[in-house]
Amino acid sequence: MQGAVEKALGFVVDHPLDVVCAGRTDSGVHARCQVVHFDTKADRTPYALRQGGNSRLPPGVSILWCQPVDPDFHARYAARARRYRYTVLNRRVRPAMFRDYLTWERHPLDADAMHRAAQALVGEHDFSAFRTVHCQARHARRNVHHISVRRDGEHVVIEVQANAFLHHMVRNFVGSLLLVGRGEQPAAWVAQVLAGGDRTVAGPTAPSNGLVFLGPRYPRRWALPEDVAFDGD
Amino acid sequence: MQGAVEKALGFVVDHPLDVVCAGRTDSGVHARCQVVHFDTKADRTPYALRQGGNSRLPPGVSILWCQPVDPDFHARYAARARRYRYTVLNRRVRPAMFRDYLTWERHPLDADAMHRAAQALVGEHDFSAFRTVHCQARHARRNVHHISVRRDGEHVVIEVQANAFLHHMVRNFVGSLLLVGRGEQPAAWVAQVLAGGDRTVAGPTAPSNGLVFLGPRYPRRWALPEDVAFDGD
Repeated sequence: MQGAVEKALGFVVDHPLDVVCAGRTDSGVHARCQVVHFDTKADRTPYALRQGGNSRLPPGVSILWCQPVDPDFHARYAARARRYRYTVLNRRVRPAMFRDYLTWERHPLDADAMHRAAQALVGEHDFSAFRTVHCQARHARRNVHHISVRRDGEHVVIEVQANAFLHHMVRNFVGSLLLVGRGEQPAAWVAQVLAGGDRTVAGPTAPSNGLVFLGPRYPRRWALPEDVAFDGD
Repeated sequence: MQGAVEKALGFVVDHPLDVVCAGRTDSGVHARCQVVHFDTKADRTPYALRQGGNSRLPPGVSILWCQPVDPDFHARYAARARRYRYTVLNRRVRPAMFRDYLTWERHPLDADAMHRAAQALVGEHDFSAFRTVHCQARHARRNVHHISVRRDGEHVVIEVQANAFLHHMVRNFVGSLLLVGRGEQPAAWVAQVLAGGDRTVAGPTAPSNGLVFLGPRYPRRWALPEDVAFDGD
């Protein structure tokens, strides 16, 4: 994605450029919204950058908006929160439509139990139990602002917002919550896993199918669109 | 789709078979639900047919349920209604995610005006103004049970149920309703187009992207799942 955006915008401004992303996503994970910043001295309107960029981007990437920002803005460091959604199709038969956007779980899930279990993850904790061994973060402390699990017909939808995420953190959350949803672990088990800090005790990493990066959030002083606004500094 | 199902089920019952579909869909149109029937003397449970069939079907097709039916049941002739949904992404920027399931319209649409205009299509009418020249139906009389147009955020969703549809009828409905939604025609114009019976007067055929066959409906005496039940004989 990043390379495609750099190439398309570089064509519009007529010089090579680097974009800085709010966050990285695993291969196979869709992003509903990603925020990037870049520097240019080219005299182009935001409209021209968006339209010109989209005309040169592959169909899987689309520029939703573009605006000038304060030179101090940084797409990664200014972000105060990131949001993810994970969608599980919970029925006996595998999906055909939308199958690239879903993980399939044939065993009936207790979404209420998953929601209760997930509340143990809210707050600032050491999330070592939910990071992959490949995670390169210096430490495992993150602040989960909120997490919800709700059933919508045949779908179970998990949404989580945190200041930042460790590698595979959402997929590891989901893997453990699925054990609770299937009744293989009690709701209180997630709190124990978190407290224990041992990755080998938590559930397996859930597949990347079903995971969507909803986008970052920034303090309102940067005057960005409402969809990426964060209430706080 | 039909060929893939015949091949997969034929493998399970161990003889060649033909399936009869509730309705045909254009190329590029997804079906959320399709009902087929077939004859076999093989001693297989519905569970074995569903599981065995799915294990041999390509990922784009999935058997949701399978049950024995009365010998008089016919997937096409017994259907009393068919339902379609058409989804328009209404924003200035083209879609990236879900783009195979959406038609993109950049001009703001007045969904309320589209809904009012669409009500002229409800009831039994000659729908010659909305059939393609390639339509092979003997006559153009169809009974539209209901049609709705509603906005859901950036999406405008059109749903229509009729006893049966002419070739391209839904896409032609949508093409004309989009002219109303963009303000290029008044809401009353759709009634005029219908009454005139002239295909060349109606709006262009909307793209197949965005169209989903929601499924057929059958009288309850066939004892099929609730999702395909029709209230009436």
